[in-house]
Formats: sequence, structure tokens, C-alpha cells
Amino acid sequence: MERISRNKIKYLRSLRQKKMREQEQCFLIEGEKMVLEILKEYPHIVKEVYVEKNTELNINFPLVFEISALESEQISGFKTPNKCLALISNPIIETKTQDLTLVLDQIQDPGNMGTIIRLADWFGLTKIIASKDTVDCFNPKVIQASMGSIFRVQINYCDINDYLSNTNLPIYGALLEGENVYKTALPQKAILIMGNEGNGLSGSVQKLITHKLTIPKFGKAESLNVSTATGILLSEFSRNR
Amino acid sequence: MERISRNKIKYLRSLRQKKMREQEQCFLIEGEKMVLEILKEYPHIVKEVYVEKNTELNINFPLVFEISALESEQISGFKTPNKCLALISNPIIETKTQDLTLVLDQIQDPGNMGTIIRLADWFGLTKIIASKDTVDCFNPKVIQASMGSIFRVQINYCDINDYLSNTNLPIYGALLEGENVYKTALPQKAILIMGNEGNGLSGSVQKLITHKLTIPKFGKAESLNVSTATGILLSEFSRNR
Repeated sequence: MERISRNKIKYLRSLRQKKMREQEQCFLIEGEKMVLEILKEYPHIVKEVYVEKNTELNINFPLVFEISALESEQISGFKTPNKCLALISNPIIETKTQDLTLVLDQIQDPGNMGTIIRLADWFGLTKIIASKDTVDCFNPKVIQASMGSIFRVQINYCDINDYLSNTNLPIYGALLEGENVYKTALPQKAILIMGNEGNGLSGSVQKLITHKLTIPKFGKAESLNVSTATGILLSEFSRNR
Repeated sequence: MERISRNKIKYLRSLRQKKMREQEQCFLIEGEKMVLEILKEYPHIVKEVYVEKNTELNINFPLVFEISALESEQISGFKTPNKCLALISNPIIETKTQDLTLVLDQIQDPGNMGTIIRLADWFGLTKIIASKDTVDCFNPKVIQASMGSIFRVQINYCDINDYLSNTNLPIYGALLEGENVYKTALPQKAILIMGNEGNGLSGSVQKLITHKLTIPKFGKAESLNVSTATGILLSEFSRNR
């Protein structure tokens, strides 16, 4: 295996920054399981693979480079660096026309973002609309939590106020005081907006909501985590399909 | 404010270990917001409070100790240590008789465990049954993810094979191939078991299930995260209440 160059390490390290990922239109994935899965499912977007010395891994790909433990530490976006990484071109996802559109308003936590992408993929959505200040979907922790769904769900970052102002669809927002979702007849075609972890939906977005939805509370927790709430609401929109 | 002693720091640090937490029947909570909330809601279980020097915090409690930045680093269970911590006696939770019992089989990730406790609290469960190899509920990351719900939901660790063998209630297990949960008439009184993140339900537990449940998949994700799946299923059991 060819060794990796100092410059390449610098380059890969620079991809930790969102700005660089946007400029280069590529990002890193980490971990043996994910690298092998991508090589199998989406080989055309894999640019290069990096494997730590003495790692037993049978990779059938022309561009595999050897890295040292120190180098994987320098490249990895995780505290516990992975022994296998790959450089990936931004995926081009074939989106389908979909009845339900999920809109995210300022989701900040990468774990939540990845989990929401995985949920969208489970419930058959191929596109998510996200406010510009939502966490970058190619952040290493988002990719990890998405469990591969990042390759099947397109995230469109845009001004969601503009987006919501230009639709004729009913706009459902998740709020603590809204209509009981279990007693609401949900339409097939709709927009569902989920808000920030700490602050919920922003004021300007709240004004554009046509239907306020609530998951009834039977106990005492102050709120639900945004990704579990998204799961319950996507499930509610799907259960009569 | 009194300074903290070296021995106390050692003691608090030792509480990072489950064994010590069990022996001492106490644990640490971290973060200004949580400490203030517990002091307000459950002051009788707060033993001591530790606050970093020069932190502006108005705490009305007799036993507040001053710690340095280095000391909070030594005590904290997090990479980014908190400036405010408290030592808490294991809460005694008044459990209610409940129709639905949630049983956890080998949940390993502290974030998932905390999120599940928060979900249980939202849906009105005051008790969770967990296999002995499920992550400890007083692990700092579980406490953080539970967002205070750890003080309202009792976790009983036991041999769940024994537990499940001794019930007359229908036992629902979440599996990838089971009956469509949207088309199943769910009873009020039941047991719901959720399995390990990677391996699902263990073989011996699967044999005790009387009803296999599945959340239908409309897209391509391989699986759902266990805490989002728990949320969707708790919601399904609750929606006809």
C-alpha cells in the first residue's frame, strides 16, 4: 500500500471545517463498517480510502493508502479515531416527489440531525429542508448517527421563511401547546416543521404555521428530545398510508 | 465559600465507577441548569453542591463548596467539565401501578438510555425494568440525556428472563419482522421489550415474546435507533388512552 503524503493529511484535516467541505464538495466517512458499506453500495462516489497499518481489511478498491495511528488521529473527527476512513464526493441523490416534507429549524446537535436523517430514510423521505443555521449534514457526528442514510436523503439548506411563504401546503409545526396529534386527521400532503433543541421553533417560523401539533404528555417530563418527537410525528403522518 | 478537600475530590472522582455509586447509593449531577432544578424540585436528596470559583450563581443551600477549574476537570465525567456539580442521594421514586411496563434488554449507549428514561417519563411510566447488563442509569451521560427524568422514573435492574417468565401479561417485542404496529389493536395492559442497539433482542428473551411488533418501513434505512423506536412504540401504546 502506498503511504499517504503530509499534504494529503493537511487536506483531510481541513475537511473538518464546513467551509472546506463546501468548497471541495467532499467529506470523510469513518469506520470499517461504513467504509465497506459505501464501497459496496456507492463505489462511484468513493475517491480514496485510508487504512491504518496492520489493520486486516480486505478492500477491493484501487486507491487505498496506508496511514499510521498518529495520522488517523490527525485526520479523524472523533476522540477515538477510526482505523479506516474514506474520502467521499458529495452524493447526488435522486429525490422522489414526496407527499410529506420535513423542514428543520436550527437543529444544532449533530446526533439529533443524524438520527432525524435516518428517520426520514426509514419513513421514505428522500429530501429534508433545513434552515441555513442547522448543523451541517456532512459533520462527522451527523454522518455517524445517520448510519448510512446520509447517502439516501438530500438536505437542502435554504431560507425556510421564504420556503414556507411560497407553499400552498398545510404547514404543521410541533409545539408544546397545539392540537392533540392522536385526534387530528393528518393529510397526505403536508409540511412538518421541527424546531431547535432548546428554543423550539423561531418566532418568524411560528407565524407561518397553519396547524399546531402536540404529542400528548401523560407524565412529567418537561419536553421530548427533538429526534424522538420527529420520529413520533413522522410515524403519525405515515400510519394511515 | 468553603474550599473542597483533596479527599473529597478523590471520593467524587471514585463515583465515576458504577461499583462505587452502588456502594455509596449516590451519584453526581452536572451543569448549572440541572443543579438549580434539583435544588428546587428535590432539595431533600441534595447532599452537597460544588461551584467553580468566580461563577456567578445564586444558590440557596447550606453545603456549597468552592472548586477550581482543575478540580472540576478532575471530578467531572465529561470532556468539557461543568462549572457546577452536586452530590445526590439515589432518589426514592414513588412508582404508580402502570398498565404498560417497559423492559430493556442490554441497552448499552448512555444517550439512548437517558432518552428512553425521558420518553418513559413523558408517557407517564414511573418504572422501567432493565436487564442487569443494561447501562447504569446513574452514569453521567445517562443522567444528562434523561433531562431530569431520572428523578421521576425508577429503573429496576433484574434478570429479565425471570421477570418475563413470571407474568401473565402479553409480551410485545420490537423486531424487524413482526406484525405492523399500525394495524395491531394494542391492549392497555402489556409489557413492551426493546433490545440492544446492535443485536436486538437476545435469543432467550425472543422466546418469551407473545407478540412481535414492527414499525413499518417506507424507505431504505436498515433499522431505527432504539430510542426513536421506543418513542414511536410508546406513542402507539398511548394513542388510544
